[in-house]
Amino acid sequence: MRKSNGIPPGKTRKIYLDYASSALSKSANPGAIHELGVREKNKLEGARTAVAEVLKARNKEIIFTSGATESNNLAILGLMRNLEQRPGLPHIITTNIEHASVLEVCKYLERTKKAEVTYVGVEQSGIIDPKKIRKALKKNTVLVSVMYANNEIGTIQPIREIAKEIRHFKKTKSVNFFQVLGSPRPARPDHSKNLLTSFSFPVFHTDAVQAVNYSPINVRELGVDLMSMNSVKIYGPKGVGVLFVKENTPIGPIMFGGNQEFGLRPGTENVALAIEFAKALRTTEKLKKEEVKRLTKLKDYFFSQLRKKISAQFIINGDLKNRLPNNINITIPHIPSDLLVIELSEREIMASSKSACKAGDGKASQVIKAINKNLKETDGSLRFSLGRQTTKKDIDYTVESLSEILAKLKKWYLT
Amino acid sequence: MRKSNGIPPGKTRKIYLDYASSALSKSANPGAIHELGVREKNKLEGARTAVAEVLKARNKEIIFTSGATESNNLAILGLMRNLEQRPGLPHIITTNIEHASVLEVCKYLERTKKAEVTYVGVEQSGIIDPKKIRKALKKNTVLVSVMYANNEIGTIQPIREIAKEIRHFKKTKSVNFFQVLGSPRPARPDHSKNLLTSFSFPVFHTDAVQAVNYSPINVRELGVDLMSMNSVKIYGPKGVGVLFVKENTPIGPIMFGGNQEFGLRPGTENVALAIEFAKALRTTEKLKKEEVKRLTKLKDYFFSQLRKKISAQFIINGDLKNRLPNNINITIPHIPSDLLVIELSEREIMASSKSACKAGDGKASQVIKAINKNLKETDGSLRFSLGRQTTKKDIDYTVESLSEILAKLKKWYLT
Repeated sequence: MRKSNGIPPGKTRKIYLDYASSALSKSANPGAIHELGVREKNKLEGARTAVAEVLKARNKEIIFTSGATESNNLAILGLMRNLEQRPGLPHIITTNIEHASVLEVCKYLERTKKAEVTYVGVEQSGIIDPKKIRKALKKNTVLVSVMYANNEIGTIQPIREIAKEIRHFKKTKSVNFFQVLGSPRPARPDHSKNLLTSFSFPVFHTDAVQAVNYSPINVRELGVDLMSMNSVKIYGPKGVGVLFVKENTPIGPIMFGGNQEFGLRPGTENVALAIEFAKALRTTEKLKKEEVKRLTKLKDYFFSQLRKKISAQFIINGDLKNRLPNNINITIPHIPSDLLVIELSEREIMASSKSACKAGDGKASQVIKAINKNLKETDGSLRFSLGRQTTKKDIDYTVESLSEILAKLKKWYLT
Repeated sequence: MRKSNGIPPGKTRKIYLDYASSALSKSANPGAIHELGVREKNKLEGARTAVAEVLKARNKEIIFTSGATESNNLAILGLMRNLEQRPGLPHIITTNIEHASVLEVCKYLERTKKAEVTYVGVEQSGIIDPKKIRKALKKNTVLVSVMYANNEIGTIQPIREIAKEIRHFKKTKSVNFFQVLGSPRPARPDHSKNLLTSFSFPVFHTDAVQAVNYSPINVRELGVDLMSMNSVKIYGPKGVGVLFVKENTPIGPIMFGGNQEFGLRPGTENVALAIEFAKALRTTEKLKKEEVKRLTKLKDYFFSQLRKKISAQFIINGDLKNRLPNNINITIPHIPSDLLVIELSEREIMASSKSACKAGDGKASQVIKAINKNLKETDGSLRFSLGRQTTKKDIDYTVESLSEILAKLKKWYLT
């Protein structure tokens, strides 16, 4: 327990008597109106501005959350919350390769009969055909949610083209959902307190978590209304994410309490993490061009070495061109992927079989199944995702190790 | 951008190729099955064990969240989620002095006709009469939520006595809500996958955020089913909280995605913050007795000095005995509390007028109004909350400053 430092209180030393608000004066509650609170609030708004600048968004369009899972939940459930007191069944369009934090929300909404959901299937390339989104649009479609880049196979979705389809639909065929249901206004005004008299649906959401490092994230150019981001995927700390919410998008909070984050996310703001997020985002943006170039070369080298050195038959999962420059994903038929991950780990190589959110449940990845209808449950898929510290030497050692592992396992699984 | 350190890969150096899961190998995704993932998972479970030991709970009863607002939302909305597909209107009992993250959830449930809510009023002392809780219990009561200690006036609620009333009700009059509604089983089994065939309502939740530093938190002795805690109030970092969920309590998740935290809280676990939380909780527990003694003396000194040195009339808010040892809350009629906070801040003293979650909205605190029916909107309340670094000197300087401020403001407000 620290005691006061002997300096007389007052002008020369601050007296902190707001322990019930935050026990640490160095991270005072930004909602407090005393000097230390105001200072924290200013730092938070600085971080918000920095994020907004990278996205070419407005400050009040940036909502800090606890991470990508919360961002995705807030995007979808927050929209549904504003519609829940309305008659009629809202319709959602998504894909069959979304992250669990989108798919499980959709399944929950279906299960509880709060929405009908169309899961548009990806092509064999792992890419969504925008025309299929267009065909799925209906007059009660309130939301289209398509991830920007897939977390397992790294395929990059045509977000701009899908946005174009949605804009076209709105212009020509859209009927305002609220008006259709006989009410001119949503149950709650949008979070920024501008009363909303009409809103043209559907809202377009993208889970951009995996894309932020390598793809353009100018929200105006992308044409999205909602965009989820995560700190830990861009070399920032855990426990913070962002949801971009285009002005006037009619979403409400999914938790209740204080009025922080423009009424969309209650709870004392985590100023330190917001600052770290902004810093990480800026660094990522600065390194983007250079890293895309460097990693594309490494990825191509990885694939070429695999072709040269691996004797077992393997399948490359996902389009080779429209793909994150750091993603290598292969299926080696008949060999359990978890086993390969463990064997690699024994050799000090950290790879993954599928999303960590779903790891270890013994089932084949649903993303891999979506692009390969002939896949058996026992077929493995192996993901190597490269990053800032990855070198050519790492890849040589990895391919060599994988080759050894396969030679060893061959007699058990491939004969 | 760091490059590899020149050490050859393999046995001597780990190769991290799981950047899509977490960009930082030093905080690998605890869901990953490779060595670094497993190591993180073990650290997380170590933190969980440490928290469980302090509360005398089981490991799987400890759910890490992003903070107290989420813990309170998960407790109430998580229970309601499991009931939402049932016919009939569930009933909730709470008090009129809860934190916004409980009150606003209740108001939302009322507004959307998902529950009926009884707000039991506190006595003039700021304490709830357990008999009034007993009287409010009905056969469709599914939840009683009473905070352990109030954040503004520091009054400590008789949690054990309320638990006793609830146990008595369950034994003598309770009808299983699910059975009443004609269904033997809840819509979803409890999160630990033990099928629940019957559960005796109501569930008892306490928001213990302000009590953890100074009051006993043995959950078995308290007799609670759900208990919310926050890191930043116990000298831990921001961005982490805990919800204690007694085994078999039928709550479900409020967000969807991965199966982390026993299926109750999706999203990559924040291992570093969980560890810090556990450490903060242990320290708080160790210092508790000594700090209660020291702060009680300081608090009594603060009140006695106020009586001696402040010439203006003032009212002490909340019971003087059943009160947190670090809380001083007074009302000085006719003087806006925000102004007092700002004047104090000018003199380098950080105090607060009411909950930071509600600060700056110009209205009188609803907690103060609850205990003083004659209060006018313009009447201020001032909270000084003491902590580990507070000294007697700080109090002398604070009372002296407040006296000066009041002398200055007197001619504007008190004549």
